[in-house]
Amino acid sequence: MIEDKNPQRTPLSDLGEFKLIEHLTKHFKVSQKSTVKSIGDDAAVLSFKKKQVVVSTDLLVEGVHFDLSYVPLKHLGYKALIVNLSDVYAMNATATQVTVSIAVSNRFPLEALEELYAGITTAAKLYNVDVVGGDTTSSTSGLIISVTAIGEVDEDKVVLRSGAKPNDLLVVTGDLGGAYMGLQILEREKEVFKVNPNNQPDLSMYTYIVERQLKPEARKDIVELLNELNVKPTSMIDVSDGLSSEVIHLCKQSKVGVDIYEDKIPLDPQVISTCEEFNIDSTTIALNGGEDYELLMTISQEDFPKIKGNPNLTIIGYMTDEDRGMHLVTRAEEKIPIIAKGWNALKDQS
Amino acid sequence: MIEDKNPQRTPLSDLGEFKLIEHLTKHFKVSQKSTVKSIGDDAAVLSFKKKQVVVSTDLLVEGVHFDLSYVPLKHLGYKALIVNLSDVYAMNATATQVTVSIAVSNRFPLEALEELYAGITTAAKLYNVDVVGGDTTSSTSGLIISVTAIGEVDEDKVVLRSGAKPNDLLVVTGDLGGAYMGLQILEREKEVFKVNPNNQPDLSMYTYIVERQLKPEARKDIVELLNELNVKPTSMIDVSDGLSSEVIHLCKQSKVGVDIYEDKIPLDPQVISTCEEFNIDSTTIALNGGEDYELLMTISQEDFPKIKGNPNLTIIGYMTDEDRGMHLVTRAEEKIPIIAKGWNALKDQS
Repeated sequence: MIEDKNPQRTPLSDLGEFKLIEHLTKHFKVSQKSTVKSIGDDAAVLSFKKKQVVVSTDLLVEGVHFDLSYVPLKHLGYKALIVNLSDVYAMNATATQVTVSIAVSNRFPLEALEELYAGITTAAKLYNVDVVGGDTTSSTSGLIISVTAIGEVDEDKVVLRSGAKPNDLLVVTGDLGGAYMGLQILEREKEVFKVNPNNQPDLSMYTYIVERQLKPEARKDIVELLNELNVKPTSMIDVSDGLSSEVIHLCKQSKVGVDIYEDKIPLDPQVISTCEEFNIDSTTIALNGGEDYELLMTISQEDFPKIKGNPNLTIIGYMTDEDRGMHLVTRAEEKIPIIAKGWNALKDQS
Repeated sequence: MIEDKNPQRTPLSDLGEFKLIEHLTKHFKVSQKSTVKSIGDDAAVLSFKKKQVVVSTDLLVEGVHFDLSYVPLKHLGYKALIVNLSDVYAMNATATQVTVSIAVSNRFPLEALEELYAGITTAAKLYNVDVVGGDTTSSTSGLIISVTAIGEVDEDKVVLRSGAKPNDLLVVTGDLGGAYMGLQILEREKEVFKVNPNNQPDLSMYTYIVERQLKPEARKDIVELLNELNVKPTSMIDVSDGLSSEVIHLCKQSKVGVDIYEDKIPLDPQVISTCEEFNIDSTTIALNGGEDYELLMTISQEDFPKIKGNPNLTIIGYMTDEDRGMHLVTRAEEKIPIIAKGWNALKDQS
């Protein structure tokens, strides 16, 4: 795909490491007050004064986390940032800086890296974070992207995974399962393409879910909304591995149980129809799908009036005493134990 | 080599991602006051009060930065931290936290990762930094390690690359070229081993340089020494790519020139004798070798009495006006322009 789109191919060896970094990072602008010194020294220098600093890091590996046969590099750069920013927002913090390191084999021309960095630049601008450092090196095989995201938060506003209490409401943003179903569509089209390369896929029925997979967004808006509503969640996590995996984290770290109501789980109509098409249960997908980058939080009952009816926040259950366990209450009012079947990067790959 | 040393081989898939992270990180202790919340949430929470924060990141890729046929995994874990801590010290800062991400293929058993983490733990303890986060995922081929190091420094003590002035003294710590010559020895022994696997290498003549390559140290002690001496360098950088490459960075960013005196460059006797054995010029190795992780700094003339005769600090030249250029003054008193021939990860590999 890279070859088709970029008739111009400048070998990376034409530039060398320093010139490559200079070339790729020249468009990055500093917008955060806390950035004292950005790219160009041994380390970036940041200043947070009284705020606390949150740090999160993720590694994206070609063939494990992404497949370049259907992921455009620009989208990949964008998504690499989103995945990390999402972790910062899950702390109820404001993302301020990122570092981006890439290892890349010589099969990538400069133009491909420019695409990747265009996506990084777009996300950095939209989410108002400064790219303050990174490393660019070669790889013997595929593309590897490592992003570290940094954020700031007032000491009394940090939200951990461990603060949920029995009777707290379980609240999720947006809708679930879309990113996973988008991946199923892309995988299917890839197989079709292999058989008949002239076949032009019609993805118009799946725009929402394909976009959820290829160009997810992080819920910066929710941190701002919670602040406006004057609501501090008692615990929070981002939904990267699927609802069941994340709620188990909250329960275990908070030492509580949970009842999730199947009929309350927010699903986009496209997720429902695509699940029907693939003949799979949409609740299973919402529970185990992953990569939605929504926020899952617990909110004290007394804050209920503040969030009631807000279209961004769906109450899907409530926390219980730990010994009550973790359950899904089905439409048939059966109670099924929740177990983590989330995406396991180490088990699925070889 | 991994196979020989570890008769016990537990497949990574036996654990899954969360249990693997838990298993590998359970020995990490928090010792820094600035670490509020370490591993186990969406992000680590740090608190630096009035200090400034420095952040640096590096990516180490198997087959590019290290060769597991002669690098023990424990040493590799150690070195992965050192490489990043060195960047923090080059800002005249104190390293406080690191995040460590690894991507690993299933050919590595759990015991191999335990070795790697043993090295990480040893370095973290010795350099008094907290491991506060990371990511563990699979790779389709080799081992990839991404480390982000965080440090703190008083606002008025940060040393950038850009502060050197004409007439400042150029000072380097320790000695140069050892790590590169150690690598030559290891590469040679690897070739010998390929021809005759029963041949036991005798490395006793090369202990110092092989250790410089396999288990380098970062100059935490120098930041403390400079503080005790009440000397703030006008500019500083760590020597990772070789003296010539680093001094060019200082000159370009400070807009000055430099004269380096060949006869002042500190060389260990083992570097000199090994260079003779390989029939290569030791000055060339000191200029271009890389991976020594010493600190190169410029110091104002008025601080000369404070550093004079200190065995850790060698004056190797002085800075000049920018239009005088960058030169090496040879033993024969010839002036040769300094050019960067440092290790280029993108050019050397394919």
